[in-house]
Amino acid sequence: MTTDKPGAGHNSGDDEQQTTRIGGIAAEALRSFIERIERLHEEKKALEGDLKDVYAQCKSQGFDTKIIKRLIALRRIDPQAREEGAQLLALYAAAIGEQLPLNL
Amino acid sequence: MTTDKPGAGHNSGDDEQQTTRIGGIAAEALRSFIERIERLHEEKKALEGDLKDVYAQCKSQGFDTKIIKRLIALRRIDPQAREEGAQLLALYAAAIGEQLPLNL
Amino acid sequence: MTTDKPGAGHNSGDDEQQTTRIGGIAAEALRSFIERIERLHEEKKALEGDLKDVYAQCKSQGFDTKIIKRLIALRRIDPQAREEGAQLLALYAAAIGEQLPLNL
Amino acid sequence: MTTDKPGAGHNSGDDEQQTTRIGGIAAEALRSFIERIERLHEEKKALEGDLKDVYAQCKSQGFDTKIIKRLIALRRIDPQAREEGAQLLALYAAAIGEQLPLNL
Repeated sequence: MTTDKPGAGHNSGDDEQQTTRIGGIAAEALRSFIERIERLHEEKKALEGDLKDVYAQCKSQGFDTKIIKRLIALRRIDPQAREEGAQLLALYAAAIGEQLPLNL
Repeated sequence: MTTDKPGAGHNSGDDEQQTTRIGGIAAEALRSFIERIERLHEEKKALEGDLKDVYAQCKSQGFDTKIIKRLIALRRIDPQAREEGAQLLALYAAAIGEQLPLNL
Repeated sequence: MTTDKPGAGHNSGDDEQQTTRIGGIAAEALRSFIERIERLHEEKKALEGDLKDVYAQCKSQGFDTKIIKRLIALRRIDPQAREEGAQLLALYAAAIGEQLPLNL
Repeated sequence: MTTDKPGAGHNSGDDEQQTTRIGGIAAEALRSFIERIERLHEEKKALEGDLKDVYAQCKSQGFDTKIIKRLIALRRIDPQAREEGAQLLALYAAAIGEQLPLNL
């Protein structure tokens, strides 16, 4: 294990902090990346938990979560693209003789 | 390595073929499972390739693959459930003042 | 559209705010759920962007992101379970004659 | 609905069969694509069912399915890349002081 002037990862590069290199690996840089990634995964997991809770509340109040998800997906599409998509869907359905409800 | 009467995985159990046990592991059984799983993954990968090809052909013939996927998803839902979903979607959209095209 | 005492989703239930009901749907409750879900998705998307940035920085500093992901996955497993998993993996590999590096 | 000389999807293009066009859509071409895609999804679903069965048999014979999946994942990597990955993993683990079993 050597402690020398800055260097990161395998290739040399400038890195202000004093760097401990283990087998050529900039240990502090690697540790800090790993800890940042782990923190982000923790936050993401917490958000997924919150999402699950909100959907559970929706259900408990009698809402249909599938329809809520569908509505949220549609809200992400700009209205004009939604309109064009709906028309094309109706056209494709008619072309193959598929009976689609007016609004689904 | 011992070759003895049938035994499976770790726990003893009856297995017709002569079993070679390595560290208590029924080697033939393990190998056959692994090879079956690998074959199934190969077949699945081939199917995914075929799907990709078909969608590429759709595109090359001017079809909108997103709409095709949407139509296929709808065809999986039984017509009555589709109808109910469409009505509920319209109701939810109206409740929050979201303007949805008649059919999308 | 009727404005009446609290009711939620489809089924009646108590809900402090004055509720506007559209086709039996508690509009405010639905809107608030949808907005909360959309905010959580936004936050999640931001986190995924941050993760992508960190991995890009890892790469730019010469680290192998696949190995970082593998190390992070292993850090999630408690050391004893890791040890047992490693031994079983070695056993299964030996049983089918698969040559595995000592530590991978 | 018009029946005219070959045309595909929206844009004109050569297509041997007589084509029924609905709103400019080549109905037979669309139907045949959709049915091919649906068949491929059916086959894929059947394969996934087979995979599930094989893993259930593994379990019933005392094998650890997580370790089997890990071994199968490793078998997909060419031995030399596996070896290099293992060494780099050991190096990264040592750099951040993470104790990894010899073979996991």
